[in-house]
Amino acid sequence: MIVLLRRSLDGPELRAAAARLTTWAEERGARLRGFGPGWDACAELEWCDGDEEAGAAELRRDPAVEAVLTARRPCHHVAAAGREPLQVAVGPARFGGGQASAIAGPCSVEDLDSLLALARRLRKAGATALRGGAYKPRTSPYSFQGLGEPGLEILAEVSRRTGLPVVTEVLDPRDVARVAEHADVLQIGSRSMASTALLKEAGAAGRPVLLKRGMSATLSEFLFAAEYVARSGCEEILLCERGLRHFDPAVRNLLDLTAVPALKRETHLPVLVDPSHGTGDAALVPAMMAAAAAAGADGFLVEVHPRPACALSDPEQALDPAAFAAALHRAASVLVACGRRLARPEAADPAFAPS
Amino acid sequence: MIVLLRRSLDGPELRAAAARLTTWAEERGARLRGFGPGWDACAELEWCDGDEEAGAAELRRDPAVEAVLTARRPCHHVAAAGREPLQVAVGPARFGGGQASAIAGPCSVEDLDSLLALARRLRKAGATALRGGAYKPRTSPYSFQGLGEPGLEILAEVSRRTGLPVVTEVLDPRDVARVAEHADVLQIGSRSMASTALLKEAGAAGRPVLLKRGMSATLSEFLFAAEYVARSGCEEILLCERGLRHFDPAVRNLLDLTAVPALKRETHLPVLVDPSHGTGDAALVPAMMAAAAAAGADGFLVEVHPRPACALSDPEQALDPAAFAAALHRAASVLVACGRRLARPEAADPAFAPS
Amino acid sequence: MIVLLRRSLDGPELRAAAARLTTWAEERGARLRGFGPGWDACAELEWCDGDEEAGAAELRRDPAVEAVLTARRPCHHVAAAGREPLQVAVGPARFGGGQASAIAGPCSVEDLDSLLALARRLRKAGATALRGGAYKPRTSPYSFQGLGEPGLEILAEVSRRTGLPVVTEVLDPRDVARVAEHADVLQIGSRSMASTALLKEAGAAGRPVLLKRGMSATLSEFLFAAEYVARSGCEEILLCERGLRHFDPAVRNLLDLTAVPALKRETHLPVLVDPSHGTGDAALVPAMMAAAAAAGADGFLVEVHPRPACALSDPEQALDPAAFAAALHRAASVLVACGRRLARPEAADPAFAPS
Amino acid sequence: MIVLLRRSLDGPELRAAAARLTTWAEERGARLRGFGPGWDACAELEWCDGDEEAGAAELRRDPAVEAVLTARRPCHHVAAAGREPLQVAVGPARFGGGQASAIAGPCSVEDLDSLLALARRLRKAGATALRGGAYKPRTSPYSFQGLGEPGLEILAEVSRRTGLPVVTEVLDPRDVARVAEHADVLQIGSRSMASTALLKEAGAAGRPVLLKRGMSATLSEFLFAAEYVARSGCEEILLCERGLRHFDPAVRNLLDLTAVPALKRETHLPVLVDPSHGTGDAALVPAMMAAAAAAGADGFLVEVHPRPACALSDPEQALDPAAFAAALHRAASVLVACGRRLARPEAADPAFAPS
Repeated sequence: MIVLLRRSLDGPELRAAAARLTTWAEERGARLRGFGPGWDACAELEWCDGDEEAGAAELRRDPAVEAVLTARRPCHHVAAAGREPLQVAVGPARFGGGQASAIAGPCSVEDLDSLLALARRLRKAGATALRGGAYKPRTSPYSFQGLGEPGLEILAEVSRRTGLPVVTEVLDPRDVARVAEHADVLQIGSRSMASTALLKEAGAAGRPVLLKRGMSATLSEFLFAAEYVARSGCEEILLCERGLRHFDPAVRNLLDLTAVPALKRETHLPVLVDPSHGTGDAALVPAMMAAAAAAGADGFLVEVHPRPACALSDPEQALDPAAFAAALHRAASVLVACGRRLARPEAADPAFAPS
Repeated sequence: MIVLLRRSLDGPELRAAAARLTTWAEERGARLRGFGPGWDACAELEWCDGDEEAGAAELRRDPAVEAVLTARRPCHHVAAAGREPLQVAVGPARFGGGQASAIAGPCSVEDLDSLLALARRLRKAGATALRGGAYKPRTSPYSFQGLGEPGLEILAEVSRRTGLPVVTEVLDPRDVARVAEHADVLQIGSRSMASTALLKEAGAAGRPVLLKRGMSATLSEFLFAAEYVARSGCEEILLCERGLRHFDPAVRNLLDLTAVPALKRETHLPVLVDPSHGTGDAALVPAMMAAAAAAGADGFLVEVHPRPACALSDPEQALDPAAFAAALHRAASVLVACGRRLARPEAADPAFAPS
Repeated sequence: MIVLLRRSLDGPELRAAAARLTTWAEERGARLRGFGPGWDACAELEWCDGDEEAGAAELRRDPAVEAVLTARRPCHHVAAAGREPLQVAVGPARFGGGQASAIAGPCSVEDLDSLLALARRLRKAGATALRGGAYKPRTSPYSFQGLGEPGLEILAEVSRRTGLPVVTEVLDPRDVARVAEHADVLQIGSRSMASTALLKEAGAAGRPVLLKRGMSATLSEFLFAAEYVARSGCEEILLCERGLRHFDPAVRNLLDLTAVPALKRETHLPVLVDPSHGTGDAALVPAMMAAAAAAGADGFLVEVHPRPACALSDPEQALDPAAFAAALHRAASVLVACGRRLARPEAADPAFAPS
Repeated sequence: MIVLLRRSLDGPELRAAAARLTTWAEERGARLRGFGPGWDACAELEWCDGDEEAGAAELRRDPAVEAVLTARRPCHHVAAAGREPLQVAVGPARFGGGQASAIAGPCSVEDLDSLLALARRLRKAGATALRGGAYKPRTSPYSFQGLGEPGLEILAEVSRRTGLPVVTEVLDPRDVARVAEHADVLQIGSRSMASTALLKEAGAAGRPVLLKRGMSATLSEFLFAAEYVARSGCEEILLCERGLRHFDPAVRNLLDLTAVPALKRETHLPVLVDPSHGTGDAALVPAMMAAAAAAGADGFLVEVHPRPACALSDPEQALDPAAFAAALHRAASVLVACGRRLARPEAADPAFAPS
C-alpha cells in the first residue's frame, strides 16, 4: 500500500503527517517505509494482515493524504477511476472524447522546403498535426542522428506557416527546454519509456507529452511511465502503442491493438496507435490504421514522406502523401461506423491558423 | 529450389522425369536430392551458382513438373500467385470474396438442449456457423477433455435443427474420419498446427479445414502447415489467427491483427480471426472483432456461452448471446465501412435449412 | 482442486466413491464436476470458501482416492514431492542420480554404413546412446521427411552392433508401436509436446520417453505434458530443454538453462539439454554443453554428423565427431567440478554389448 | 557502408577528405550521405552495385579514414577483429584474460554500517568488487528511488575501508560526473541501454563502464550500444547479460547464457553475467553462476543482502552472504575445470588496500 501525501504540504505539515501515519501503522502492525531521501512525499506501508482495502479507505480521510494506492489500483494521476475520458486538444487536433486525429510527417526532418511542401499536402489530406524527428534515436552511432536544433527551427517554421502543431521527440533531459520551446507536443520514444529522468523533465515542461510504449513493456509498466510524467505536473498525456518486439522476421514489430481497449479500462488518457513503426511496412499501414480506428484509438501517428524510397531513415515504412490520404479516408469511415469521427482541420484554434 | 512433380505420374513416367532432372542438374553443377523414401514426389536442387530464377523458369516448362518453388515463393497450393481470393461457402456462411461470417458457440459441447437453445439465439444474432468442442486439447490430463463422440452427435443434431454448419476440432489423426462424418468443417487447433500427421489426414478427409495458427508460429510456418493440408487434397482452407504467446500477464494472448493483411499478400485463402482466444477476455472481444473486420478478416470465431461464468472451460473469455449480438452488429458496420459485408443467413443452401 | 481416484477401482467401487465425494462436496458447499465422459477417473471440485488445503488433506484419507491436487501442487506422477531424484538407465547410459550421459548422432538417419561408422566414433568419444531421426518433423512438406521404417531398421542394426541404445522420434500415434519395437527410448519432439493423443500412446508403449519442451511452452505446461505420459503408465521420462522461440536473429533458439534447476525443484525426473537445437549453431554447442553440465543437467542430446556440411537436415548445427569428443571431455570436467560424473560406457548392460 | 574519418582531423582536413570521398563515390555510382549536421565525422555510402568489400578495402587506404564498416562488420571500436581478448582490471578485480571476478552487494545502498559489514563478508567470500545502487530505476514513481548522493558517499567510504572497488548505476546524463567521482565503474542499466545521451556521457567520464543488455535487445543492438560508449572515449567496457523478458511466469527473466559465447565471437570485450536479475530467484542463482562460468563468463554481478527478506528492493533475488560464498566456491571450481580462474583478492592494487 502506497500513501501519497499532498505535495502542497510544507515542512511542519509533512512532519506532522508522517508522525500520524507512523502511529496509525504501528497500531495496525504495519511496517512504514518512506519520507526520507529516495522517497518523494510518499510512503510504503507493508501490510501484515487485516483488510488492506479497509485500511486504505480509512487513510484516505486524512487531510494530508492525496491518495492511497493498492495492488488493484496502483496508479493515481493516470487512473480512469471516476474520471471522464480526457480529450486533449492541440491546435486543430483532438485526441479523445469521440474524436481522433492523425499526426503525420517524415521520420526525420531533412530541410525546410520539402517539409513545408509535405506539410501542406498532409493538411489537405486531413492530418491535424505534424510529426518529424530533429533528434533521432538510432541503434548505430554511425547512422544519421537528426539535424538537432536546426531541425527544431524548421519544424517551428513549418508549423507557423501551415497551422499544424508539431510533435517531436526529445531524447536527453538536457534538451527538454529547448524542444519545448519549438514543439507543441513532446514525444518520448519507445527506447526512452523507462528513462525516468527524461519522463520527469518532460512532465514538467508545460507541454502535452506523447508517450510511446516500450518495445517490450507491459501495460502496467506503460501506465507507470505515464504516472512519472503526470507526477511531474503534466495532465495531458497521449499514450501511443507502436508495436512490440517479437519473433517473426516477416513483420518488423508486432502491433498490439488489444492494448487500446485494455488501456482504456485502466486510464482516462487518450490512446494513439503508430501503425508505421507498429508494422515497419508501408503496405500494411492502411489496414492497421483502419483496425486501430475500430479498436478505439484516439489518434494515429503515421510516417509520410514525399518519396519514401529516398528517406534518410526508415524508408520502407513511410507512406507517400496519396497513400496516406486514402488510408486516412478509410480510417475516417471506420471511425464513423463506430460512432466517432476524425477531427476537422477547420475547427482550428486561431493561434494555429496557417500564415 | 524444390521441384514438384505431378502426382498423376505413374512409375515409369516418374523414373523418366527423375532421369531428365538429374541430367539437367548435373549439367548446371547443381546437387539433386529426393525422389527416394522420405521425399514425396519432389526433389530438392541445391543450387551452386548461376541464376536460380532463370533455372526455375526453364524447369517449369517440363511437362512432368507441377511447380518449382524458390525462396521467394516457397509454397505452391496456398500461394496467392495469379489466383483470385478464394471464397469458401459452407451452408449459409461465406468466408472471403467480400463477405465475412461469424462462427459462434461454446468452448465445449455440454448437452443437447442447451446447445440447441444457444444455437437458435446465435442464428438470430447473425452467426452463420456453429462452433463447439467435442475433443478438447487441455494442458492438464485432469481437466475436462470433452464429450468425445456423443459431443459430435449433439453437434450434428443441432446443425440439422438450426441449419447452422458445424466447425469442430480434431486432435488425433485416428479420429479424423469420425469427426468428418459429423462436422462440416474440421478444425485444427493451435497446439496441433505443427502435427504433420494430423494435417495430412485432415487434408484428405473431403471437408474444408479451419487451421489455427500455432501460438508462436511465424507466418511462413503457418502457410507451410496449410500447404501440408492442401497437398493432401483439401482446397478449402480457412486460416485463423488466434493470438500469440507473449510476456504481458495483463492479456492472455497477443492478437496479431497485422497477420491478416500480411497473410493476404501471400495467399488467396480466407483469413479469420478468433478474438476470444486472441485476448482471453470477454470484455476485449467486441473491440477486437471490429478491429479484425477493419483489418480485412473474412470471418470471426467467437466463444459464446449462455451463462459464461458456468462454462466447463474458458469461462472468462466467452460472451453471452446478447453481448455477441451487439459485437457482431458493430463488426458488421465496420465491414460495410470497408466495402464488404456480413454474410446473410437467409442466403442459405437448402441443405442447411433448419428442420 | 482435482481428486484422482485409483484406476484399479471397478465400476461399483467407482460409483460408490463418486457418491461419497458428492456428499462430501455438497456438505462443504463445493461444486463437483467429473466422472462422466470426458473425465478420466478424476473429479474437479470447485471450492467456494474454506481452507482448500485442509479439505485436500481430508480427502486424501479416502481409500479410493489416489491423490488430491491443488494449485500449489498440480501434478501427481511427475511431482518431486517426497521422492528421490530418479535415475533412468538405458544400456550403458545413466540419466540422473549423480550421473549424466550424452545421446549423440545425426539429425536424420541416412544409410547403414555411415551411421555405423559414426556410432563407433561416438562410442569412443564417450557417448552412451545414439540418436537419429527416421521420422522427421519438417516445416515444409517438400523437405526430406526421414526414411521412415527403413530408418528404424538401420538404427536397430547399428544398436545391435555397437551396444548403444537408440533414441528416436515418433510423430504419429499410429507409429508408436512400430517405433517402440526398434527403439530403446521414444522421443516426443518439441512440436508434438502438446499432442495429447501422442503423449498418451507413447506413455503406454513400455519404453522410456524423452519429452522435449515445446518451443514456447511454460515449465508448467511442460510438466503437465509429462504428466500425460506418466498417467498412461510410463515412469521413466526424460525431460529435455531444447531452446525457446525468441526475437534475436543472431541465434536460432534461446536455450533456457535456468529451466534445469527450476524443473528440478518441481520434479524428480531427470532433465536433459539439447544444445544443438538449443542454439542452432555448432560453434556455440561446446560452451552450452559445459554450461548445461554446470546448471545440473542429467544428459545431453547432441547432433553429430561425419561431415556436417553434407547433412540432409540442419547442417549448421551438427558437430563433427572430433569436436564432439572435445566438447564432451570439457563437459565431463565440469560435471566432476560439480560433484557428478559422466556415465562410463564400460558399465554397460550385457544386453547392450556391441556384437 | 559506413566510412569513419579520424576524429583528429581539423576542419580543412575534414573538408578535403569529404571532397575526396564524394568524388570516389560518384565515380562508382554510390550515393554519399553524411558529414553535415546529424552525422558525427562519418559518412554513409549507399552502394548500388559492384563489390562492396573491395570498395571498402580501397577506402581503408585513405589516410583520413579510420575505418570502413560493412554489414558483416558493423562495429569498429568494440569489434574483436584482430584484437586479443581484453582484460579489464579494477582494484583487485580482473575481468577477462583467463580470470573472472564477482561483483557483489545489495540492490540498494541503505546505510553505512550495514554496507560496511556486508562488504567485509563479501571480500572474505571472494568478491573483488562491490555493487550497490544509489540511484535506482524503478517502475513506479512511488517505489524507493535510492538514496542519491548520500548513497554514493557511503559507497565511496566502504570502498576506502575495504579495498573493494565500487560499481554503481547512473541513470541521468546530468549525474555522470558526480557518480564518476565516487565510483570506480559506471553501470548503465538494462532500461538505459538504448539511452544514447547517457551512453555518450558515460563513455566520456574516464571510468570503465559496465553496460547491461536491454531486456529485449538483440546482441547486435547490445554491441552498438557499447560502440556508442567506446566512440566517446571509453575503452574498458564490461558487457553484462542480465536476462530477457519472456512469457513464463515461473521465472522472472530468461537468462540468455548463449549470449556469452555468441558475444565473444564478435567482440574482444569481457562478458559478465548477472544471475540475480537474470533469474529473479535466489534459489536459482548458484546453479546459474556455475553455468555462466562454464559458458565462458568473465565475471558475475550478484545481489547479496545480509537479510534478504528485509531488503528495500528485490528481496526475493538476493543471496545471503553464506549462500553467496558457497555459490562462488562452486563457480570457482567450474572456472578451474574450464582452464580459467577466479581473480584473487590478495593480488590487489595498493590503491585498493583496505584502510
